[in-house]
Amino acid sequence: MKLLLSSNSTMPGEEYLGFPSPYIKTFLGEKPVKALFIPYAAVTFSFDEYEQKVNEAFQRGGHSVVSIHHFDNPAKAIEEAEAIVVGGGNTWQLVRMLHDQNLMMAIRRNVQSGTPYIGWSAGSNVACPTLRTTNDMPIIDPTSFNTTGLVPFQINPHYMDANPDGHAGETREQRINEFIEINPLTFVVGLREGTLLKLENEKLELIGNRSARIFIQGLDAYELNPGDDFNFLLK
Amino acid sequence: MKLLLSSNSTMPGEEYLGFPSPYIKTFLGEKPVKALFIPYAAVTFSFDEYEQKVNEAFQRGGHSVVSIHHFDNPAKAIEEAEAIVVGGGNTWQLVRMLHDQNLMMAIRRNVQSGTPYIGWSAGSNVACPTLRTTNDMPIIDPTSFNTTGLVPFQINPHYMDANPDGHAGETREQRINEFIEINPLTFVVGLREGTLLKLENEKLELIGNRSARIFIQGLDAYELNPGDDFNFLLK
Repeated sequence: MKLLLSSNSTMPGEEYLGFPSPYIKTFLGEKPVKALFIPYAAVTFSFDEYEQKVNEAFQRGGHSVVSIHHFDNPAKAIEEAEAIVVGGGNTWQLVRMLHDQNLMMAIRRNVQSGTPYIGWSAGSNVACPTLRTTNDMPIIDPTSFNTTGLVPFQINPHYMDANPDGHAGETREQRINEFIEINPLTFVVGLREGTLLKLENEKLELIGNRSARIFIQGLDAYELNPGDDFNFLLK
Repeated sequence: MKLLLSSNSTMPGEEYLGFPSPYIKTFLGEKPVKALFIPYAAVTFSFDEYEQKVNEAFQRGGHSVVSIHHFDNPAKAIEEAEAIVVGGGNTWQLVRMLHDQNLMMAIRRNVQSGTPYIGWSAGSNVACPTLRTTNDMPIIDPTSFNTTGLVPFQINPHYMDANPDGHAGETREQRINEFIEINPLTFVVGLREGTLLKLENEKLELIGNRSARIFIQGLDAYELNPGDDFNFLLK
């Protein structure tokens, strides 16, 4: 399997998909790839707009995308895709649309057979077994909480360490501790903005210049850095 | 109906239930009330601990609570309650436990018949039609997204205006705008920390020293202050 899972699309001040672009370019290879883009996480802007924005970013790296909403048979589009790209936005809306069209297992099957998968934010959430570590507002019932399970652990994208000053709501760490209390067998990676997880040649690695925070029931949460072993998460 | 719905329990630096305590005291009246406490939103601490913490705060105002987990028949406990108090924590866990025990409609029926209801954070979420404007991590499938519908609008507790510096994730305003895009007939109140909504004598009012942010599909989000008319939200 080939997976590139980014915490987020863009750091403040960057152009769209700024920091992930060099990694996407290398991940897809020298030969230009026309990837299938899944824009379903978009809620307050159109699929056409989303496709155009992502396509411009991919073209800077010599690749391109075409959005699944142009295909009459989306399951067939997934089957024939050179690569699958799932963009961020609202995870609940994304998962609902994937379930409504029976695409969740189609993605799983094809990525497990070798189709490269790229996701950021909500697109990284759906690479996990369930959407239970999303930060998004549950604006719609997703039918099922299950997602593709391409990896056996959960990612919390946009992981952040503290609340804004003076804000009393739960921290992200408290929220993930609640998750592992209720789901004690599942590991969680708090993936900070500006970082990605890459799975290639059966090796899972952290990319970027910040550490990731690992949550395992019964242990204190701890940090792992780029270069550290992440493969234990695949077991 | 008598409702007291707080954004949060405690401001940084305060004792537990600091700012809501004077309002709770007045809301429950001069005569000491022994309220029924629902601690189900607790995930990483015990119901006994939660009950004790809340009881200490209520006793400072001359009232007290007893937790529903001590009763063999929780539906009967709700029916006979002098007041119902629903504490914060994880909304998903709270909603799941209320559905599992068929208590959601028991609460609705009894509060509609006059039993005073006090909630903070997750406890304010369940006073709304659904849990779709919670900020909490969906650590468990709640069975149904529906909650008590004591009010016809949605509250977003712990409402905050901006992300921490340098954080690129969606702002709360963006998340709620996604909600009203998908649920265009539902009004949302962004309830800032340190503020409460009180419904008494058929009048809904904002309490505290900050404004609330109102989200209605088709309008720009806007601010309402304590003293402003909030009753349009009940229609």
